[in-house]
Amino acid sequence: MSDALLAATMAGIRPVTDDDAPAVQGRLDRLTKPPGSLGRLEGLALRLALAQDTLKPRATPRAVIVFAADHGVAAEGVSAYPREVTAQMVLNFLAGGAAVNVLARQADARLTVVDVGVDHEFGDIPGLVSAKVRRGTASITRGPAMSRDEAHAALAAGIAAAERAVGDGAALLAVGDMGIGNTTPSAAITACMTAHLPAEVTGRGTGVGGDALARKVAAVAKALEVNRPDPADALGVLAAVGGLEIGAIAGAILAAAKHRIPTLIDGYIATAGALIAHGLCPAVAGYLVAAHRSAEPGHAIALGHLGLEPLLTLDLRLGEGTGAVLAMHLAEAAVRVLDEMATFEGAGVSDRSDG
Amino acid sequence: MSDALLAATMAGIRPVTDDDAPAVQGRLDRLTKPPGSLGRLEGLALRLALAQDTLKPRATPRAVIVFAADHGVAAEGVSAYPREVTAQMVLNFLAGGAAVNVLARQADARLTVVDVGVDHEFGDIPGLVSAKVRRGTASITRGPAMSRDEAHAALAAGIAAAERAVGDGAALLAVGDMGIGNTTPSAAITACMTAHLPAEVTGRGTGVGGDALARKVAAVAKALEVNRPDPADALGVLAAVGGLEIGAIAGAILAAAKHRIPTLIDGYIATAGALIAHGLCPAVAGYLVAAHRSAEPGHAIALGHLGLEPLLTLDLRLGEGTGAVLAMHLAEAAVRVLDEMATFEGAGVSDRSDG
Repeated sequence: MSDALLAATMAGIRPVTDDDAPAVQGRLDRLTKPPGSLGRLEGLALRLALAQDTLKPRATPRAVIVFAADHGVAAEGVSAYPREVTAQMVLNFLAGGAAVNVLARQADARLTVVDVGVDHEFGDIPGLVSAKVRRGTASITRGPAMSRDEAHAALAAGIAAAERAVGDGAALLAVGDMGIGNTTPSAAITACMTAHLPAEVTGRGTGVGGDALARKVAAVAKALEVNRPDPADALGVLAAVGGLEIGAIAGAILAAAKHRIPTLIDGYIATAGALIAHGLCPAVAGYLVAAHRSAEPGHAIALGHLGLEPLLTLDLRLGEGTGAVLAMHLAEAAVRVLDEMATFEGAGVSDRSDG
Repeated sequence: MSDALLAATMAGIRPVTDDDAPAVQGRLDRLTKPPGSLGRLEGLALRLALAQDTLKPRATPRAVIVFAADHGVAAEGVSAYPREVTAQMVLNFLAGGAAVNVLARQADARLTVVDVGVDHEFGDIPGLVSAKVRRGTASITRGPAMSRDEAHAALAAGIAAAERAVGDGAALLAVGDMGIGNTTPSAAITACMTAHLPAEVTGRGTGVGGDALARKVAAVAKALEVNRPDPADALGVLAAVGGLEIGAIAGAILAAAKHRIPTLIDGYIATAGALIAHGLCPAVAGYLVAAHRSAEPGHAIALGHLGLEPLLTLDLRLGEGTGAVLAMHLAEAAVRVLDEMATFEGAGVSDRSDG
């Protein structure tokens, strides 16, 4: 069932082409500014226009979806925080007190919180989308994180969440994560999908160092050794060494791309989700916008694999979609510049020295 | 007269102290996130709190002031654009069609345009603040840009503009520039104030290269040789190798600091203004926030001299205050995080592994 949903979603994704790039660039070059002088904003306007297949891309309404899940590997001392923080932070999201709540309010982005696999029974709690596949993954150092069916279900949860956001009118999506221990599966996914060593892609996450960092590197190495995931089988990689929220992020990216909605990728965990989405369907690449450069060493490797250059470098290491929501201001700036600026002819401004 | 205004403004600036830093940092560390995980946003919240001397800094209402003036040196082939573009762009600002208009609307920042020395008679034109000191500077390669009295008047124009913005309620200020040819005086100021060579601080501006870049470096060298400005006399540096809009930017920074209002510094030209303000009154340093890292090689040198690290790196090279206005979103994010996020106790979230 979710197999058919995933297949239909992927079948609906058309690759982004450069066909309209000259038209968009032409418009940017007629605006009252030296050519290229708005730098990354111009590239962003171009990317959003090509993804949305229009000369008038939109950055509003916007939505941010935070996917939460627990990780068996968290029991192995890879995080500075206890596992119950995942559930506590979900409640904090619902109460509006977390960083992503504050930033989403500022950015006028509609926030949805989806429980894909938190190890806690929330019951019927207002505002929480319940799509729990299982109460956390199994430890990836001892075997697969989840079954292939469960990986499908995680992807389906993300597809459903993004479909709802798009149905509610979102023209721009941001994805974020909450899951104590989830930089470890993100590192394992990155190592596998980009053919790098565990030590090259494993960092201090939200604050481990010394022995704990060594334990993390060892856990990533063990996970790859025990599970031997095949990078050509992205669903298998997700099942073997992934996380439920990472799978949901991948699903959301795929569903958004099917509707030609660009997705702002937050940090390392969201980028691991993008690696899975890209492994399943390389055509998603043109719909991705990297929001923030994480200090995690594996992040640059993952972004390089996807051909992405992040917009912001603010030393964030929080996740939740915080970097992606901050980058929404830049996305809006980019589309407004393209839409609202005067042209040289229109404003009677001379162009270059020969003007 | 403007001498007394400048002296009174500077006398009113109190240095920013670190006395309340532990209280602000303590609040940041009780918020539901790993310590320091909001990176640069936390440093920005701290800086704004200390500058405004409150545990509840504000980033709204906000104002952006664009100062426009012409430059005698523009006749010497240092710019890719003809001199009349300065006046044309002023009209574009007033019509709402320039990049800074679009970004200011998005950021809900009130925009003011001040003519400090455009070589054009605008007459009585709605929306333009007329504070013309003279119709452009003299060429800095042949003698001083302006007299000391004119330098005072330029500073006074900036002081008056910032005082009006503060009077209208601004809690946060951004400053920007418009002036064809103005990276050349900015380079000359930077070379003088930071003791660097012309070639180290001179770049391609809005688009010159090759021969024109060589002419620019030669113009900066000639300006310093002809005028021999003394870095210990910042007013003299402004008069010798500066620009009228650069002086006004310095004045605006000083006046804002007197009211404990932080100023977001745009790019290379605004930073040259900050160098003059800092030379006149080193206590302004704590009120400055660098918005954007320019590609101009001298910009990093000027920022280093001021002890500033910019928030954004978006390859902008437009001026007008565009980078500063974009950074206002980050300033608002920083103050809202500090004000609105839940604490660990308040939200019932466990802190660290021992929590």
